[in-house]
Amino acid sequence: MDVKGKIGQRIKHLRDISSMSQKDLAYSADLDRSYIASVENGSRNISIVNIEKIATALNVTLKTFFDYDEFDKPTTSH
Amino acid sequence: MDVKGKIGQRIKHLRDISSMSQKDLAYSADLDRSYIASVENGSRNISIVNIEKIATALNVTLKTFFDYDEFDKPTTSH
Repeated sequence: MDVKGKIGQRIKHLRDISSMSQKDLAYSADLDRSYIASVENGSRNISIVNIEKIATALNVTLKTFFDYDEFDKPTTSH
Repeated sequence: MDVKGKIGQRIKHLRDISSMSQKDLAYSADLDRSYIASVENGSRNISIVNIEKIATALNVTLKTFFDYDEFDKPTTSH
């Protein structure tokens, strides 16, 4: 799975355990719901500013957001 | 400091302790040296794919890259 997929998977997981809908998350992150949907399905090369907005809306720091097994695997150079 | 500044500070720190020049890092991350310079001075809203390229070139995982005090501070919503 590429990094965009991992980001989407992580956001969906954190959103689910917070019992938030995509609409709730979009509202509190001040982003479009369709954008959240595309990030979650792994099709967006999301920027750090938007990752921070989403992490803040999910009430986690960036450190906690990336404290996730999928992000602890070395990747081969592109 | 905003998140772009924190990313730049973190990359510079990891690069310094690896005794890599910006040119070395740009080469192994397959990015332009001028791009690395602008990311390090905090003026780039860098994407997750490029963060991963740089982390890989610095021999750290994304989890390790974000395991840094500056990324453990909650941010106010934008």
